[in-house]
Amino acid sequence: MRILILGGDGYLGWPQALFLSKKGHEIGIFDNFIRRQFDLQYGFDGVIPIKTLHQRTAVWRRLSGHDMNLYIGDATDYEALSSAFREFVPDAVVHFAEQRSAPYSMIDRQHAVFTQVNNLVGTLNILYAIKEYVPNCHLVKLGTMGEYGTPNIDIEEGFIEITHKGRRDLMPYPKQPGSFYHLSKVHDSHNIMFCCKAWGIRATDLNQGIVYGVETDETQLDPVLATRFDYDQIYGTALNRFCVQAAIGHPLTIYGSGGQARGYINIRDTVRCIELALQSPAKPGEYRVFNQLTEQFSILEIAEKVVRVAARLGQRTEISYIANPRVETEEHYYKVHHRSLIELGLKPHLLTDDCIESLITLALENRDRVDPQIIEPTIDWRRTVNRL
Amino acid sequence: MRILILGGDGYLGWPQALFLSKKGHEIGIFDNFIRRQFDLQYGFDGVIPIKTLHQRTAVWRRLSGHDMNLYIGDATDYEALSSAFREFVPDAVVHFAEQRSAPYSMIDRQHAVFTQVNNLVGTLNILYAIKEYVPNCHLVKLGTMGEYGTPNIDIEEGFIEITHKGRRDLMPYPKQPGSFYHLSKVHDSHNIMFCCKAWGIRATDLNQGIVYGVETDETQLDPVLATRFDYDQIYGTALNRFCVQAAIGHPLTIYGSGGQARGYINIRDTVRCIELALQSPAKPGEYRVFNQLTEQFSILEIAEKVVRVAARLGQRTEISYIANPRVETEEHYYKVHHRSLIELGLKPHLLTDDCIESLITLALENRDRVDPQIIEPTIDWRRTVNRL
Repeated sequence: MRILILGGDGYLGWPQALFLSKKGHEIGIFDNFIRRQFDLQYGFDGVIPIKTLHQRTAVWRRLSGHDMNLYIGDATDYEALSSAFREFVPDAVVHFAEQRSAPYSMIDRQHAVFTQVNNLVGTLNILYAIKEYVPNCHLVKLGTMGEYGTPNIDIEEGFIEITHKGRRDLMPYPKQPGSFYHLSKVHDSHNIMFCCKAWGIRATDLNQGIVYGVETDETQLDPVLATRFDYDQIYGTALNRFCVQAAIGHPLTIYGSGGQARGYINIRDTVRCIELALQSPAKPGEYRVFNQLTEQFSILEIAEKVVRVAARLGQRTEISYIANPRVETEEHYYKVHHRSLIELGLKPHLLTDDCIESLITLALENRDRVDPQIIEPTIDWRRTVNRL
Repeated sequence: MRILILGGDGYLGWPQALFLSKKGHEIGIFDNFIRRQFDLQYGFDGVIPIKTLHQRTAVWRRLSGHDMNLYIGDATDYEALSSAFREFVPDAVVHFAEQRSAPYSMIDRQHAVFTQVNNLVGTLNILYAIKEYVPNCHLVKLGTMGEYGTPNIDIEEGFIEITHKGRRDLMPYPKQPGSFYHLSKVHDSHNIMFCCKAWGIRATDLNQGIVYGVETDETQLDPVLATRFDYDQIYGTALNRFCVQAAIGHPLTIYGSGGQARGYINIRDTVRCIELALQSPAKPGEYRVFNQLTEQFSILEIAEKVVRVAARLGQRTEISYIANPRVETEEHYYKVHHRSLIELGLKPHLLTDDCIESLITLALENRDRVDPQIIEPTIDWRRTVNRL
């Protein structure tokens, strides 16, 4: 299959490219390196050194014999994007090419506008490029479980059957996103759903839980193939933050009460889920939604896991509760259905102590690279101007 | 009350400004004249001549003794928008400042992107300007009934109580918009709902039906105060198109079967509804939704009314069915609840034969201004490039 990976230089895009290349697919990577630009902008650097895309692909070519087609460009630039579609002629597109941080989108007005315009225009351009140049191409779009918010009923996979005043309909599941970033994903979902109906586009929308882990069989082959391990306040997830804090002997900082429940998925499962979606594509005109997660935990449960595993490594760690900079419910019902990917064949890798240990160990090994300054949350959802 | 009307030079914005000015409110108008620009771009001109905003406000000042504060600028330009907020210091904002045509948004990629970026960024800027400069200001946002699409269950006012697997929650009503324009309104609704929650903004979202009529007590005072009577394929509604076709002896063109049902509201009720919303504002942090319509009809019912009234005026009119350029269900369940505005005191003006007669008469009087070329629909929802 010819697979174009938009955002193929990023945390997930790169391991995805490796995984699918290994399976023998022809890979194109389209990326504008903006994720690297954000690091430069804020002086952030991850736990692990990241090589350039050209270095990465050169090592991969040497190790695997597989080449990748690189298209350097911005998805909001239709000329650049559509020429990649015309040249590469993909059978499927995997779309990671979005600003993906909630705190980033809440910095101030410019960052909110950038996030929404960047994500919406990029996705609209992709939809037009598919329709105009490769109408049979399968769009696999990365969304987020954060689109749903935390409703008081079970979360279904994209649609819910509603019985109301004696009548019944299958409706899009109501969305209650909690940041301008999450909102941008909801907007994308609506735009894609419409294009499937109007233009017969085939699309799979993956509402992904929080991804953890940095190692896949492919990234482990060579340090040059490593992917990002972010722990800063903008791009670091709570689990990454906790592992780094445990490594440097800092208390684990929980925002609010810690009762916030979320879905989680191992990076090894993420790359496999997308392969499964590609192997059984949506039908022409079909807009389908999979909830891409394998487990759910509260933030406090995650912190307690990290404390326990850190102790195993001889690190004594405390938990510290800090004011929640986000606007979110801290104690709530949370039950997410996620059968579709299991039915397609997913065999989950769970969040084991070994997995957490490997993250803490990585942070310990790279302790001198860690800057505790960049962990502290200074972006407050309730303010319109935040300074980093 | 100090009321800032964004898009106050438009079809509804202008009569709204007059209506509220007459009631003694201090009015600010913010407009970029882009609606007039679209006419220039496509060579369109309405049934009635429209004077400049400066001519209009000068006549109104002479007739009423009331001045209006004019701010010429674009809502996507935060410097221009926020300075209007700082100078005028509104108690309430009525937001009409959006690209409001579904066919316009479906012309091609540029028009889709323009519509979504224009509407989203404008609304985001308004939310930031309120939060930063007038946090207690009440935002009254014009939305559309088209956000809901045509579900097989009753349409409620913005929210629906869902019972699911033994649990219950009040959820945002699922949206199924049918064009990039309607999608932009759904995106706005989600953004506003979030800002009410995160920032305590008070907002009323009016999901308006199709507005008809061009006369209010105020616009009738002088021809210079007239508002738009659009009949072109981009900005003309089906009712306006039918009235103009009846006047020039052209068959009434129904898209598809004509079974498409929609909500309707008289312009006199629109201006009153917004006054009612302003008089009983949303509470801080409240996001409320009113369905702003008074009746519902199918397109065929509208056409039949026009045929009957035209006959009264001696015009023999036929109905012609043409291929539907839109992607929409033509036969469907449609039941919309709209109690809120009635409960606040709305006394509806219905779509009477006299009302239709006045529109056909206006078209007959201005027959020499009518260009049948601009009525024919050439924008096909299924194509990505349309030529006008």
